[in-house]
Amino acid sequence: MISPEDLMWMAIEKCREGLALGQSPFGCAIAFGDRVIANAHNTVVLTTDITAHAEMNAIRTANRQLGAIFLEGALVATTCEPCPMCMAALHWSRVSTVYFGATIADAAQAGFNELQLPAAELLSRGGSRLKLVGGVLTAECRDLFTDWLADPARHVY
Amino acid sequence: MISPEDLMWMAIEKCREGLALGQSPFGCAIAFGDRVIANAHNTVVLTTDITAHAEMNAIRTANRQLGAIFLEGALVATTCEPCPMCMAALHWSRVSTVYFGATIADAAQAGFNELQLPAAELLSRGGSRLKLVGGVLTAECRDLFTDWLADPARHVY
Repeated sequence: MISPEDLMWMAIEKCREGLALGQSPFGCAIAFGDRVIANAHNTVVLTTDITAHAEMNAIRTANRQLGAIFLEGALVATTCEPCPMCMAALHWSRVSTVYFGATIADAAQAGFNELQLPAAELLSRGGSRLKLVGGVLTAECRDLFTDWLADPARHVY
Repeated sequence: MISPEDLMWMAIEKCREGLALGQSPFGCAIAFGDRVIANAHNTVVLTTDITAHAEMNAIRTANRQLGAIFLEGALVATTCEPCPMCMAALHWSRVSTVYFGATIADAAQAGFNELQLPAAELLSRGGSRLKLVGGVLTAECRDLFTDWLADPARHVY
């Protein structure tokens, strides 16, 4: 079984690929056991698709890879606490555990300051059994925002 | 400007196209003024994509049609009160007004009983300025659930 930290490093590297393409600073990887089946960065600007957050792209890739809509047993590492769209999509996908690094407060400091509903609250209010675990490589995930902010060519979404 | 009711009738008709294909009972249409730029039904099973709710499909179609990620000024009619994934996506897309027919309580009665966070609460907790209006052709939208439940070939999502 891949460790949460190793899966998060993959998401961080994918996020950096996105940064090099002028995309927003978010990455997300999905694994079953040792098998990583999806790793994606945000492509909202690249694909002209407002729904193309990193988690959404990773879920859709996983669905395609497996030919299945449900991902029971999957582990997810996402560089930032998911927004309500992504948190709900992860619930619908039935993944087992979601690890995140940076928080929505970190995202807000970088300018991503809308819909700040804590992911844990969405899950508890919605009665979800998905396991959500923060604090995985938080400093390294925060650095993604710092590096993105330092890039004069950055986009807003 | 198309009326909320006329836009909702289009979403209802599209939903019925989805029902005929064995898809879940949800439809969503998006318009600017008199111009309808997207109309989609749920395709989760058809496209093996757990994120392919009607609203998500309509937003992505609108993004493609316009070649733009933001839909300021757009009116949306969706046959059911949006789930948190779709409500957040509609916020990110910057549409102006979302009309809905059936409620999440109606959806729950039909078996869609997870993540029942009221759409209005997600918007208020997240500080969204999107305008959300329920009660548009509610009975006709509820009928979609009834007809779906009566179909022995129905899928679960």
